[in-house]
Amino acid sequence: MSDFSRAQGRAADALRPVRITRGYTIHAEGSVLIEFGATRVLCNASVLDKVPPHQKGSGQGWVTAEYGMLPRATHSRSDREAARGKQTGRTQEIQRLIGRALRSVFDLTLLGERTLHLDCDVLQADGGTRTAAITGAFVAAQDAVNGLLAAGRLSQSPIREAVAAISVGIVQGTPLLDLEYTEDSVCDTDMNVVMTASGHYVEVQGTAEGAAFTRAEMDKLLALADKGIRELVALQQASLLNK
Amino acid sequence: MSDFSRAQGRAADALRPVRITRGYTIHAEGSVLIEFGATRVLCNASVLDKVPPHQKGSGQGWVTAEYGMLPRATHSRSDREAARGKQTGRTQEIQRLIGRALRSVFDLTLLGERTLHLDCDVLQADGGTRTAAITGAFVAAQDAVNGLLAAGRLSQSPIREAVAAISVGIVQGTPLLDLEYTEDSVCDTDMNVVMTASGHYVEVQGTAEGAAFTRAEMDKLLALADKGIRELVALQQASLLNK
Amino acid sequence: MSDFSRAQGRAADALRPVRITRGYTIHAEGSVLIEFGATRVLCNASVLDKVPPHQKGSGQGWVTAEYGMLPRATHSRSDREAARGKQTGRTQEIQRLIGRALRSVFDLTLLGERTLHLDCDVLQADGGTRTAAITGAFVAAQDAVNGLLAAGRLSQSPIREAVAAISVGIVQGTPLLDLEYTEDSVCDTDMNVVMTASGHYVEVQGTAEGAAFTRAEMDKLLALADKGIRELVALQQASLLNK
Amino acid sequence: MSDFSRAQGRAADALRPVRITRGYTIHAEGSVLIEFGATRVLCNASVLDKVPPHQKGSGQGWVTAEYGMLPRATHSRSDREAARGKQTGRTQEIQRLIGRALRSVFDLTLLGERTLHLDCDVLQADGGTRTAAITGAFVAAQDAVNGLLAAGRLSQSPIREAVAAISVGIVQGTPLLDLEYTEDSVCDTDMNVVMTASGHYVEVQGTAEGAAFTRAEMDKLLALADKGIRELVALQQASLLNK
Amino acid sequence: MSDFSRAQGRAADALRPVRITRGYTIHAEGSVLIEFGATRVLCNASVLDKVPPHQKGSGQGWVTAEYGMLPRATHSRSDREAARGKQTGRTQEIQRLIGRALRSVFDLTLLGERTLHLDCDVLQADGGTRTAAITGAFVAAQDAVNGLLAAGRLSQSPIREAVAAISVGIVQGTPLLDLEYTEDSVCDTDMNVVMTASGHYVEVQGTAEGAAFTRAEMDKLLALADKGIRELVALQQASLLNK
Amino acid sequence: MSDFSRAQGRAADALRPVRITRGYTIHAEGSVLIEFGATRVLCNASVLDKVPPHQKGSGQGWVTAEYGMLPRATHSRSDREAARGKQTGRTQEIQRLIGRALRSVFDLTLLGERTLHLDCDVLQADGGTRTAAITGAFVAAQDAVNGLLAAGRLSQSPIREAVAAISVGIVQGTPLLDLEYTEDSVCDTDMNVVMTASGHYVEVQGTAEGAAFTRAEMDKLLALADKGIRELVALQQASLLNK
Repeated sequence: MSDFSRAQGRAADALRPVRITRGYTIHAEGSVLIEFGATRVLCNASVLDKVPPHQKGSGQGWVTAEYGMLPRATHSRSDREAARGKQTGRTQEIQRLIGRALRSVFDLTLLGERTLHLDCDVLQADGGTRTAAITGAFVAAQDAVNGLLAAGRLSQSPIREAVAAISVGIVQGTPLLDLEYTEDSVCDTDMNVVMTASGHYVEVQGTAEGAAFTRAEMDKLLALADKGIRELVALQQASLLNK
Repeated sequence: MSDFSRAQGRAADALRPVRITRGYTIHAEGSVLIEFGATRVLCNASVLDKVPPHQKGSGQGWVTAEYGMLPRATHSRSDREAARGKQTGRTQEIQRLIGRALRSVFDLTLLGERTLHLDCDVLQADGGTRTAAITGAFVAAQDAVNGLLAAGRLSQSPIREAVAAISVGIVQGTPLLDLEYTEDSVCDTDMNVVMTASGHYVEVQGTAEGAAFTRAEMDKLLALADKGIRELVALQQASLLNK
Repeated sequence: MSDFSRAQGRAADALRPVRITRGYTIHAEGSVLIEFGATRVLCNASVLDKVPPHQKGSGQGWVTAEYGMLPRATHSRSDREAARGKQTGRTQEIQRLIGRALRSVFDLTLLGERTLHLDCDVLQADGGTRTAAITGAFVAAQDAVNGLLAAGRLSQSPIREAVAAISVGIVQGTPLLDLEYTEDSVCDTDMNVVMTASGHYVEVQGTAEGAAFTRAEMDKLLALADKGIRELVALQQASLLNK
Repeated sequence: MSDFSRAQGRAADALRPVRITRGYTIHAEGSVLIEFGATRVLCNASVLDKVPPHQKGSGQGWVTAEYGMLPRATHSRSDREAARGKQTGRTQEIQRLIGRALRSVFDLTLLGERTLHLDCDVLQADGGTRTAAITGAFVAAQDAVNGLLAAGRLSQSPIREAVAAISVGIVQGTPLLDLEYTEDSVCDTDMNVVMTASGHYVEVQGTAEGAAFTRAEMDKLLALADKGIRELVALQQASLLNK
Repeated sequence: MSDFSRAQGRAADALRPVRITRGYTIHAEGSVLIEFGATRVLCNASVLDKVPPHQKGSGQGWVTAEYGMLPRATHSRSDREAARGKQTGRTQEIQRLIGRALRSVFDLTLLGERTLHLDCDVLQADGGTRTAAITGAFVAAQDAVNGLLAAGRLSQSPIREAVAAISVGIVQGTPLLDLEYTEDSVCDTDMNVVMTASGHYVEVQGTAEGAAFTRAEMDKLLALADKGIRELVALQQASLLNK
Repeated sequence: MSDFSRAQGRAADALRPVRITRGYTIHAEGSVLIEFGATRVLCNASVLDKVPPHQKGSGQGWVTAEYGMLPRATHSRSDREAARGKQTGRTQEIQRLIGRALRSVFDLTLLGERTLHLDCDVLQADGGTRTAAITGAFVAAQDAVNGLLAAGRLSQSPIREAVAAISVGIVQGTPLLDLEYTEDSVCDTDMNVVMTASGHYVEVQGTAEGAAFTRAEMDKLLALADKGIRELVALQQASLLNK
């Protein structure tokens, strides 16, 4: 498309190498390490036999998420949120996004009165941690649901279809798929897209970091995101087919 | 466009009545009460002769925002954040959005080493508080900047152009402009669009509350938002022309 | 009485212009904007069908208050309490005072097991915010109680009589009624008096800001307060007679 | 005066036995245990070579206070404020009162740029803890100032005169001096009076706990308080004359 | 043993004078002031008719402790934890230690579903506050249990045996018993030992403050601690024999 | 030694398989994943060019540690400390221990005015997380120091010798080395020992969870710990010899 050249000769419309490792830790009902290049996020799914107050007695379940970043997941050390005594606005924004994204593909009535709690912790950050978290959390959630089905605790899956997420952005005039940190920090426009396997949008969050963006640019970014999501959904399914 | 009929015979592509009252309080450098129908937000702009640590010594200024909702701005009383001891995730998300929206039209170098602090407090809520806040905060910011120019504290305006925001959504299949609360609470898709006077996007945040949405639906929503923003920018300019 | 001359030729024993606007917002069961000159406080009364733990099962109700000041209600911007994560000692002191003042005219047994929650938020401050809050909160409380009576949820009013509050002080040797900010900030003695319509004291809080004060001075201040309270009670009643 | 009979045959206008023990702990510059009957408050005065930000560079000093109650100072155990993570509104109200009371007799310019910090901790509570704290804190403050004078760090005392405090109230129609807990918990009106040695008021805080009170009742209470304060000031001076 | 000479000619293996005052305050079910030389800790035992959630319905009781230090218990004033809004790590470490130490001698089944809450507050610190707190808390706990037995609320004591604690350390090569502050602040090794009356260990916490320590040094410290604990247990029993 | 048989036929005096992976993440100056059987702790060492206030201007450096546990590192999910808004007492106790252990082998003067910050985050827990953290943090610290030496930012290593830690305990009368979770949860006595390569003690923390323990038992535990530490130090050195 244009002149900006990416690290390691990556094409403007190419994802970084994606790796999905299931069963990464032993205690969680679903445990996935997902890597988008050097970004590594551990997504653990816990099945809890309780629901938040607003759902109690409704017969419905709940799906929620929390997000964290290890202090030295980043180039320079950032403060530990537990030590500071509160989560940043950025953390809260991201964990609310992950929760909404996962809920969008769940039929909460079929889940029964239990909570699926997704903990997404960034071990190493290189851009795209929230999109990797959503993509990996879906696989962890599927593993947890499969466990409930296998144990006879659910008779029908509450998951309607897969969901995945990717970032896109414009760097020096070039629309790019799956920004890594060095690209993200200089981009003019940054967009995160969450989409279902059937190609419908769950979230579109576009932000002009520098100059405001045009409708034509947005169209290009959405097309790139479509391509990336399709590839991620295929990778999720391939991973889930492994024993 | 479709069958959903709105309160008071409002057309699907019509804004609610918008009122912008400048000089609403006496102490702030800019003070605007903005009303989108029954939604009323007080936007106060303060000029502070200091910048946050990360800007100190840079010669640049800063623009930031805080958002609050009076406990009984809503149908049923919500807890006072000051009494609970923290702001909700929703509040933080909104105030970060307002801050980014306003910064997008500022040249921070021309502002000099001072902060423009925008306080947006919702006196009465009926849907669209964050978009009303952005639209009103711009007018308050312009008043504050005009004061600095008139006092000779600035020789050139740091504001590049106007910025405004509007919500759009799909209710029972009908794309609607400027959702009020009863519409917002039943919509399938909810999108907030922040745009400059020149028609470029600053933020696009679309969320599927119920079913995920298609590209065709998004296109309709973006077209409605364009229309709404154009009207809001005209109302901002008209208001600023009054003495 | 003496030489100190007040702004706009106000007499030492005169209130500032008082305005009471009922039905100021649409959601609260009682909603009053009260103005003492340039001081403007929004007093919202909410009826909640629950009581604090210490009243549960007692058959009695509760009346409580919270107080807040918008960050730019004052001449220079003050920190937002919700962002700082706690209410100041001053805020807590004031909201406890408002709660005690209102409870003093309520028969909690007649209120039934519900809470009347009064939110007093200062939109613009120019001295006397706590006394305006008490005076306005009474009107909002009366509106909320009238609503309960009209709806048949109460058969007898739990309100025994009206209550109002006013500040008095000594500035440059002159006893003054209803101090505005420029007077308050230079006064030697500052006294807030809360009184019932029948002329009994609910609270008397006198503080020497500069020199300690004599018994003779206190007597003069109490006489001024009596006069002010009588006028405020008349204004409350006049306001409540309007449909 | 009336029919209410007090514990141990105490007259309505009599203080409880007051004991003032100086040098109660070894580290503080002034350390006083004050007892009003069974109420015991430890008042420690610390001299700190710094002032709060708002006084920095002014050449003036500062006098401030903090108040605490041991969890089992009371009949039933109350939560430890340090464990709950915040001070109650009552605690803040009391420590602000103690600070104002002490500052009222200080010439902050003569104190120099240092802070006199008064820590008042209730070891055992039986009513009147705030008035005992003020009365004891003055003695601790005098000891700390005497130490500065003796060490040549001050050449002139910044203390203008003594200050003391007492509670008065109306129980079953009888005005009483120095309420103990069983009286305080049933009184209709409760008043705390802070007064200088020369008989001027620093604070008068009267609150109707039950029925509102009349001017005649207030006059009786003020007369009782005058008598009590005179006796307390004499006890402070006697204590300070001991080596 | 060596050359280091202690204040007031104290032998290396001697405790400071220990004083145990029972019934120090009037409200608590057990109230003990314990002094190890100039260290003074008030230990109040409260009997609460509730247990923490994890024990509810178990038929078992609970024993827990909280620790605090008055701001001016120390040579220079330290911040009040209630004002800072949290307990330090040191405070939490100590109160967890006191709780474990006391629980080690309790049969929680015999205590019934109630909590024994021990509040240990340091009035004056001169080293060894945590060991004084444990030693004094045991006496307060015994008094509270004796009260329950006398009132017929317990038929059998849940206390199996006494527990006490002492510090030992190495200063300039000399092993010392019961370090006071000036010794503690220069010691190379500091060890706190909690032991039962029958001579078994409940806790051993040795820390190298300077050079790491050898096995031979540890043996000497443990021997010193044994001697100290035996003496403390005898003092506890003697105190409890007094009416 | 006795009858208790361990999982997988492990001998009472055997460590679990230990794996030390250096360079586990890319950003930290030292990054080590250490595994004691199923316990996995990520230890990241950051070099910061600042020191805490109490060391400023001293020319000395500082070594400190923070500890965290991912919410689903454990068998059942525990609350996220960042979301709860504070670290537990257990977390603070452990991170203070890690900090002291590492400082014990550092010459802070040779480190220069910089901080070595060790973040120890438990990815998977199966007993012994604090001892694994100390043992792994030393390797990460050594890597960070080697980086400073290689870059010429230090001319001499501030590390005096290696330090490692292990847990020992008594289960059903059998002294065991390196307890795993199922052993830890039923043990009578639990002891953590931190020791230098030269065989000196840095910390000994023994706690009776059930019955108090005897001197003879302590001697057996210390002997086991000696053996374990010697093996761990050898494994640290072997790991550091790899390129």
